[in-house]
Amino acid sequence: MPLNVPIVENILSANDRLAQENHARIDAAHVFSINLMASPGAGKTSIIEQTLSRLADKLRIAVIDGDIATSLDADRAAAAGAGASIQINTGGECHLDAVMLRGALEQLDLTKFDLLIVENVGNLVCPAEFRLGTHKSVLIASVPEGDDKPYKYPGMYRGVDALVINKIDLLPYIPFKMDFFQRGVEALNPGVKTFPLSCRTGEGMDDWVNWLLSNIERG
Amino acid sequence: MPLNVPIVENILSANDRLAQENHARIDAAHVFSINLMASPGAGKTSIIEQTLSRLADKLRIAVIDGDIATSLDADRAAAAGAGASIQINTGGECHLDAVMLRGALEQLDLTKFDLLIVENVGNLVCPAEFRLGTHKSVLIASVPEGDDKPYKYPGMYRGVDALVINKIDLLPYIPFKMDFFQRGVEALNPGVKTFPLSCRTGEGMDDWVNWLLSNIERG
Repeated sequence: MPLNVPIVENILSANDRLAQENHARIDAAHVFSINLMASPGAGKTSIIEQTLSRLADKLRIAVIDGDIATSLDADRAAAAGAGASIQINTGGECHLDAVMLRGALEQLDLTKFDLLIVENVGNLVCPAEFRLGTHKSVLIASVPEGDDKPYKYPGMYRGVDALVINKIDLLPYIPFKMDFFQRGVEALNPGVKTFPLSCRTGEGMDDWVNWLLSNIERG
Repeated sequence: MPLNVPIVENILSANDRLAQENHARIDAAHVFSINLMASPGAGKTSIIEQTLSRLADKLRIAVIDGDIATSLDADRAAAAGAGASIQINTGGECHLDAVMLRGALEQLDLTKFDLLIVENVGNLVCPAEFRLGTHKSVLIASVPEGDDKPYKYPGMYRGVDALVINKIDLLPYIPFKMDFFQRGVEALNPGVKTFPLSCRTGEGMDDWVNWLLSNIERG
């Protein structure tokens, strides 16, 4: 149906234009921003909590939480010390897009923050297609999801700037071949910065937090 | 944009019409069919493998595997004893729809099978909106995903006929409150048939397999 192609292209570039506006707005406020993406249950909110517990006394951090329903995640971020925590309920939509982020940014005085964490809807497919305007895209993989995910969800793995491998404390209980996983990642996204860690034990969290800090200092 | 509404409705009902045709075709061949849905890594393919290992000597089983890329899952189903194993690569699409299933059904002589298992794309949002025409929809939840998933992904939990809770062998290592999880399920889908199990240890697999058998006998 070639007639539909121009329409799809228009929708995508409208999103990209808004993403550029979001980017300019965040930049102007000297805030470093990340878009956290992952399957449901990979640990986006836990990583936000653990990041806040390590950085909330050093940095002013805002969290924007995308979910289909509930404000459970925004509540957790607020409880963990976020300076601001805004919930976007997508009303069924399977991803955040730039217009949703713009709506949330309008509720924030960005100049009061150093770091903005955007938690996307739990989905390993659709969020990859919608730029938001953040500085970096971060994918959280999770050991119990299995080592074949880069092969099966290449779009998401291809496009990100950093990769967290969460729940490494479960490696003794799960058949997860780290070599096989990392070969898949390397083929799609050579040299991508990777952080194996456990929100539960804290192992590896320092490297992740230092990466955030180095990006903020650079900004 | 009210102009778009009729178009969306037409697309949905076109899918539903095709789903009805798929349903009639499967019914006419006296095959019992399920649509397996879950997040990435919840264990759809592992459950198919374990189901095949218990039933492949009693029943003729066909598997249709939906994935964005690779034929890893269809290969696993074939190796585990499926009488037929067909891969649908969605080319980036985040769900199966009725037209994709129709294409796969055309490659199968359904009269040669008792059970058809359709493995959907790993996604806890989008597949819920597209009927395929199978007899039952089954959601696989997974302990490491966390106990808040019914609250955060209500659309998927609301619409299914049965719920598998996989990876219960990991309960000792993960803070998962089964009561909280099940209260969320009950609010959305009262009385839904639930199968806590572990593909790894085999615990609970008999109840799941017996449910499939009872549906096949009834058919």
